Amino acid sequence: MSAVRERFSFNQATAKYWPIPDLVTGCLAAGVTQVGLWREETLAHGLDKTATLIRESGLAVTSLCRGGFFQTPDWYDENRRAIDEAATLGAPVLVLVSGGLPDGSRDVDAARAHVGEAIGELVPHARAAGVRLAIEPLHPMYCSDRCVVSSLGQALDLAAPHPAETVGVVVDTYHIWWDDQVWAQIARAGREDRIACFQVADWATPLPEGVLLGRALPGDGCVELRRFRAAVDAAGYQGPIEVEVFNADVWARPGPEILDRTLSGYLAHVD
Amino acid sequence: MSAVRERFSFNQATAKYWPIPDLVTGCLAAGVTQVGLWREETLAHGLDKTATLIRESGLAVTSLCRGGFFQTPDWYDENRRAIDEAATLGAPVLVLVSGGLPDGSRDVDAARAHVGEAIGELVPHARAAGVRLAIEPLHPMYCSDRCVVSSLGQALDLAAPHPAETVGVVVDTYHIWWDDQVWAQIARAGREDRIACFQVADWATPLPEGVLLGRALPGDGCVELRRFRAAVDAAGYQGPIEVEVFNADVWARPGPEILDRTLSGYLAHVD
Repeated sequence: MSAVRERFSFNQATAKYWPIPDLVTGCLAAGVTQVGLWREETLAHGLDKTATLIRESGLAVTSLCRGGFFQTPDWYDENRRAIDEAATLGAPVLVLVSGGLPDGSRDVDAARAHVGEAIGELVPHARAAGVRLAIEPLHPMYCSDRCVVSSLGQALDLAAPHPAETVGVVVDTYHIWWDDQVWAQIARAGREDRIACFQVADWATPLPEGVLLGRALPGDGCVELRRFRAAVDAAGYQGPIEVEVFNADVWARPGPEILDRTLSGYLAHVD
Repeated sequence: MSAVRERFSFNQATAKYWPIPDLVTGCLAAGVTQVGLWREETLAHGLDKTATLIRESGLAVTSLCRGGFFQTPDWYDENRRAIDEAATLGAPVLVLVSGGLPDGSRDVDAARAHVGEAIGELVPHARAAGVRLAIEPLHPMYCSDRCVVSSLGQALDLAAPHPAETVGVVVDTYHIWWDDQVWAQIARAGREDRIACFQVADWATPLPEGVLLGRALPGDGCVELRRFRAAVDAAGYQGPIEVEVFNADVWARPGPEILDRTLSGYLAHVD
């Protein structure tokens, strides 16, 4: 087993309909040692029940998705809950999808400033819980409704005022592959010790129906995934490499098959 | 009639199914003095016939869309033809949509480098024809299949080696509104005298079916259109302001109604 394969983490969202107990069994059977989890699914299964199951399985949790959505009225309480859930699950990282424009607003600058302030308010709780907040830049096509943070450079700017051990960024190939600044920003993220999470998904052309599900398994798209992995490595990141793919056709397959195809794509295009 | 209204240009793509003679009559009836044209439509109506009709109408042509697609094998001849058509139509500007990745390629750097080389090869013909090439950055969601130029900064970098009177850029609000570097890059575009074309469309949320048609009339989306207009003005641009909206619901309306709604939105949100 190569070093890169040991860093593989299977993000639960790639097999959205795989029940958590089956996911755990399936990962163990495939020799996968790490998983990324989602709040909705873990809460539906039961937070403590999931935490116990994962702990007893020996699997490591690499991240919990997701906090953020700072444009909603209850962002503060909701994100504190998300931090607590990450701590309960043993996830060292909480991924933040920062939210889009407030209803009726056109002021993206103000929305971005609010994201920065909100993260600042969450830092003490995150530090106390031992959970690192990871600001995820989402593809600019989500800027209006899901995430006003649209580039790795922006995410690093937002992280900058806060201690690196508590606030980092997510490098997700799907969201940032098009950006000609991305290589410089990955190097910067390394220098500033901000890479909290590295997620891999490919870009399918044309985008499948609905921009939310337009991701492809590694190798099924046009992203230079291995170049990203090498760049993140060169920036000093030695952590897990999650594969996280939202794709209705993938989701329709049985969990073990999805995991198998994910691992094959990963070994062929990321390793 | 305000100065900004005098700068209004109705891009033909906003009323895709309005026959050219009706478009001309409709614009004149509405007091609109400028139009942006498309190659497909003008060729379908007849290039010389369109040129004569427009000239006799007194309408000014502000741009012709589009050249580019430099990843296709016949890009050189095709773009020379597009330059000639722009000259015939009296369009001072040919908009370039640079094309996506070549089939099977993942090398976006190479594709961008090729765009720069291709434009360089077209400069002599464009200069001789008196047509300015305008590099249009398209939204990053089109990077793989339509345009590897994804930001205004990139477009300006590509334009930089060439004389500003022959190679400029397009500022299109729909494509670049999400970019936090856009204000600095608009100012730079002014300093470098590169703004060849200013196009306005709004961003609808959620995107309508199919990312190609996800544009909205001015005011029907979340873009700070007036801020863009003021920024472009402050950068020294005094030229036409085209409204160009691809939207199936808009296209389904009669031409005069589309033009009326376009003008209303323009006066309320751009003027």
